[in-house]
Parts: sequence; C-alpha cells; structure tokens
Amino acid sequence: MLKGHQSWEFASRPVILSSAAVGGPFEAEGPLAEDFDLLHGDTLMKQKSWEQAEKVLLEEACDKALEKAGISKEHINFFLGGDLMNQIISSSFAARTLAAPYLGLFGACSTSMEGLALASLLVDKQSADYALAGTCSHNSSAEKQYRYPTEYGAQKPPTAQWTVTAGGAAVVGRNDGTRNRLHVTSATIGRVVDMGLTDPFNMGAAMAPAAFHTIEAHFRDRQLPYDTYDLVITGDLGRVGHSILCDLFQRHGINIPLDTYQDAGILIYGDNPGVWSGGSGCGCSAAVTYGHLLKKMRQGAWQKILVVATGALLSPLTFQQGESIPCIAHAVSIEA
Amino acid sequence: MLKGHQSWEFASRPVILSSAAVGGPFEAEGPLAEDFDLLHGDTLMKQKSWEQAEKVLLEEACDKALEKAGISKEHINFFLGGDLMNQIISSSFAARTLAAPYLGLFGACSTSMEGLALASLLVDKQSADYALAGTCSHNSSAEKQYRYPTEYGAQKPPTAQWTVTAGGAAVVGRNDGTRNRLHVTSATIGRVVDMGLTDPFNMGAAMAPAAFHTIEAHFRDRQLPYDTYDLVITGDLGRVGHSILCDLFQRHGINIPLDTYQDAGILIYGDNPGVWSGGSGCGCSAAVTYGHLLKKMRQGAWQKILVVATGALLSPLTFQQGESIPCIAHAVSIEA
Repeated sequence: MLKGHQSWEFASRPVILSSAAVGGPFEAEGPLAEDFDLLHGDTLMKQKSWEQAEKVLLEEACDKALEKAGISKEHINFFLGGDLMNQIISSSFAARTLAAPYLGLFGACSTSMEGLALASLLVDKQSADYALAGTCSHNSSAEKQYRYPTEYGAQKPPTAQWTVTAGGAAVVGRNDGTRNRLHVTSATIGRVVDMGLTDPFNMGAAMAPAAFHTIEAHFRDRQLPYDTYDLVITGDLGRVGHSILCDLFQRHGINIPLDTYQDAGILIYGDNPGVWSGGSGCGCSAAVTYGHLLKKMRQGAWQKILVVATGALLSPLTFQQGESIPCIAHAVSIEA
Repeated sequence: MLKGHQSWEFASRPVILSSAAVGGPFEAEGPLAEDFDLLHGDTLMKQKSWEQAEKVLLEEACDKALEKAGISKEHINFFLGGDLMNQIISSSFAARTLAAPYLGLFGACSTSMEGLALASLLVDKQSADYALAGTCSHNSSAEKQYRYPTEYGAQKPPTAQWTVTAGGAAVVGRNDGTRNRLHVTSATIGRVVDMGLTDPFNMGAAMAPAAFHTIEAHFRDRQLPYDTYDLVITGDLGRVGHSILCDLFQRHGINIPLDTYQDAGILIYGDNPGVWSGGSGCGCSAAVTYGHLLKKMRQGAWQKILVVATGALLSPLTFQQGESIPCIAHAVSIEA
C-alpha cells in the first residue's frame, strides 16, 4: 500500500450474494416502498420499546438476506454490524440472535459502508467464506436519544434531517465465477474531517466535506477518471449537503457528471416536505443501497456505482460541551 | 475458512513495532505503575471535562506509540479505535487529531483486541503497511455515563469492578525479518454469549462464559494443545469472573495450566480492596497488554501469550428495559 493511500481494491471481486431492506410505516409511504423486502405498519413492530423495534429491523434484514442467499446463519463466519444507539445495542443484541462471530462497528451513518468494506475485505482475503454486514436506525429511538422528547413538538429548521426507520443487510461471499452477479470491487476508508460546524440540525453541511475528501481520495488512489461510475451516491447528506457537495466538486475540479450524483437521504422520501432536508441514520444508506440500488443494478439500470456513506461522529454530550462535529465517509464500489 | 471457524492465522506474522500506555493518578499507585509511559497526577489532565481527559489518554497513547516506533502519523494507513463512551467520542475525536483513515469499533472492553486483531489482519493481508490500534477508558466519565453521580457515594457490591483510567495503543507493521520482535500470530473473533445474567454490578460473572467460548474456539480452530501459551490473560473479568472461568475450564476439560492463567483486571490494581473485584474498561486490557505484558515479553518473561479481551455489550437503557447482558470476547496471540 502506498503512503497516504486509503483504498482497498478487491482483486477477487467478492460477490453480494443477497441483500435485504426492512422499513417502517413512514418508509412504506415513500417512493422506494416497493424496494423493501418487508414493511411494518407501526413503529413498535410488536415490541415493547422503540429500541427493541430497531433491533427487530436489523434482525429481519439479516434473516431476509440469509434466506435470499439460501444459506443458514451457521454458515456466516462474521457479522459486521453497527447502529446509532449508545453502545450499539441494536447490533449487539441482533448479534446475540444470529450467534455468529461479531465485529461491532461505529461510524454513525457511515457504518453501513464501513461494514460492507470490511466484510468484502474479509472475503477477498479468504479470511471469511461468508460475511454478513448490516445496520439499522429507528426514528423514535434516535429522537429519544439525541433530541427532545417528541411530545414537546419541538420545531426543527429546514436543514434538519429525518432519521429513517429501517434496517439493511447484505451477505458477501466468494466469487466463484457465476455470471450476472454484483461484485464489490473496492473500498475507500475515510479520515475524520471537521470544518468547525457545531449545529446538530445541519448535519448535511457538516458531513459534505467528509464525503468530498473520501470521494477525492477514492478517485486519486485508484487513478480513475471522474466519469467512471454510472452513479455516485452519498448517504445521507440530504438536500443541503448534496448542494454543498456539488459546489465542492465544482470548486476543486472534481468533474463527476452532476447528473450521475444522487443522495440516499433525498431518494428515500422524495420531495416530502415533512422530512426537511431529507432522510438520515444508519438505516438510510443501508436500506437505499441494499433495497433500492442493488435491485436497480440487478435490473440493469447501472453497471458501476460508488456508495459513499457519511457519518457525523458527535454525541449529545460533545454538543453540550461546545465541540464541533467530526465527520467521516466510507466509500464502496459495486459493479455488475 | 472451515465452516464454523472463527480464527485467523497471520501467516506473515505482523510485528508490533511499538506500544504505549498512559494512565491516571489511581493507576500510578498500582503495582503496574512502572509499565506506563506516562502517568497523570490528576483525573482532568488539564482538560475541562472527564470526557476530554479520556480523549487525551488515547491521543497520548497513540503519540507515544508512534514516537517509539519512529514513524509519523502520516505513515499510518488506518487507525482502529473504540471506547465506552456513547458514540465512541473519545476515539472519533482522537481520530480527528490523528487525521488517519479511521475504522471506529465497539465491543465494550473487548474493543482493545478487536482493534489489534483487525489491525494485524490488515497488515498481514497487505491491506495496510502500518495500522494503529488503540482504546481508552476513564473512571469518572464511565461512572457518569453508566451509573449514579459519584457525589451520591452509592455503595457497590464486592462483585463490582473499577473502570480503569488509561489509554493504550500499538503500532502494527510488516514483518521484515528483523529479529527480537513481537509478532501477532493469530486472532479469534468471539460470538455473543448471554447466559441470562442481568446484574451490571457483576460483569465478571456475565463475561466469563464469553471468554470461555472464545478460548475454547481458539484452541479448537488452531488445533493447539492447551499448554501452548506461557500466559493466557483475560481482560477484564476481575476476581469473580476469573474464578468462574477457572471452574468452567475444569468442568469442560479445557486443561489450561491454571498457573498460566491471569486476568488484566486483577493485575492492574493488585489486591487493593477499593476496586472490589478488580479493574475494567477498554483502557484496562489495553494498558495492561500494551504497557505491562509486552514489556515483560520484551524482557523475556514469556514467549507466547494469548490476550482475551472481554466485553459486556449492555447499555444503561437495556438494563432499564430488563434485558440480560450480552457478552463477547476476542483473543489475539502474541509471540516473541
């Protein structure tokens, strides 16, 4: 690995054997509803708490992905999971249910691609035959943990984002040469970027520079032309962050064709004004990628995509202590 | 990888180029004081909050490790960090300072070996030239987050453990054949084990079965005789968990010579009765391993050791919701 490089190329082209997305009632009303494997009619999902419901989203996404891959959980060598809850309880309790060797991860909303990058590395390097990567988030558990009680009806500015209630998971396995499969071809692990922003109701603006740095590093490390991908998708900058990132591309001569650049936080709820700038949360990029994007790739919509999951690494406590918001983004390229 | 296997053998034998441990004032009074690279005289460490002090412990441990390895932070391909704070803020803010590509991890107190295992894998598979693994914990920030305000003077039962105020880090690099170095030879990634225990003041008892399962898997996967290691060390079961694990070994015929089995949570404070069952926290196994154990190995005390870091994956919220405590352990073998 060259000094300063932060990308892995997966020579064996590990295969995404299957993927699944599970969502809540609000996601069921969105434009991507048909791309979910399972949609719940209420936010409690027959559980006693939102936190337990969030765990169920991840468990069901993992179960569905395993079912679609046609393998049992005993075959999974490693489960790589993470979420937004304190001590990533959703993932750890899902890992208890799965009973697979478990690597707990935390990168806020970037965890989805941190997990897929590491799962693909393990398979590529023959350190796993099957690796399962999954993340989740729940609007109500996130609001409860990060913000004011929802009963207060606190207003939010138009830069705020709506935490997605969803779980997503993918099974990564070896490339045995079978045709018409989706391959993970590379990953770029991000550095922490902090431009000094402190407003937790404007995460898109805080995270856009991190996405920019990771995307720039990805093209530089791999020496790729900027029009390599049919789709570059960030998740989840929302409308505000998407627009800032477009500006950053332009200012720094990163000539990614802007009609090939989208954001998962915008896609998931379309132009619903009730979500302000767009969706967010570990479940956003996971559900959009493992539900919508891979389905479209299987249908032939795109040959090569780059998924850039972004995360804001703050906590309510760092905000209270006046700290700015450290951000990160991890990118994974998927090819048909 | 065989079905059901959960261990990696590192064929290239990556090298621990350097390691460092930084501690607080209470650790400075303990029997391992001389094995720290830096000891602070007060718990705030010139910061405004305990959380900021905790971050400093990790930053200093990383700095010291880099200094001892004689490499600058620009050479670090990946920093793998984690801690006990909500949203692992200590590690993420330290990653901001380090400015290296960052993989955030969470496995509670097992994070130390989760990080060393992954760092060694990256170097072994030529996916990194230099990887930095580090974790930290701080008694006061942990008490504040997990328990009652210390001002209440709440009493604890003798099964409780004392969160260690310390940070530890190690630089892993390629094996270029230089003699007299310490090598990471294998790692075993644990499954979540939950025996239904619910008492957060008796983590040792909750975690002992997880340590048992990982140790059993390690010897089974690698087909090693039980007397392979000069030292098997868990971190951090404390006296209660240590005694339970000894019983489990005996009951299940895992004939690890009991005089070669120690626990980091017991070592760090010796027989100080003020810590109840012993030390705990991400900083405990990290400081004991990266300070004490590797120093003793360099002095020739042991040729082969197995470090089994244990973690209790609960949160205050899962406890309040009546959940039991899922536990995990990750093992890493180090050879001179």
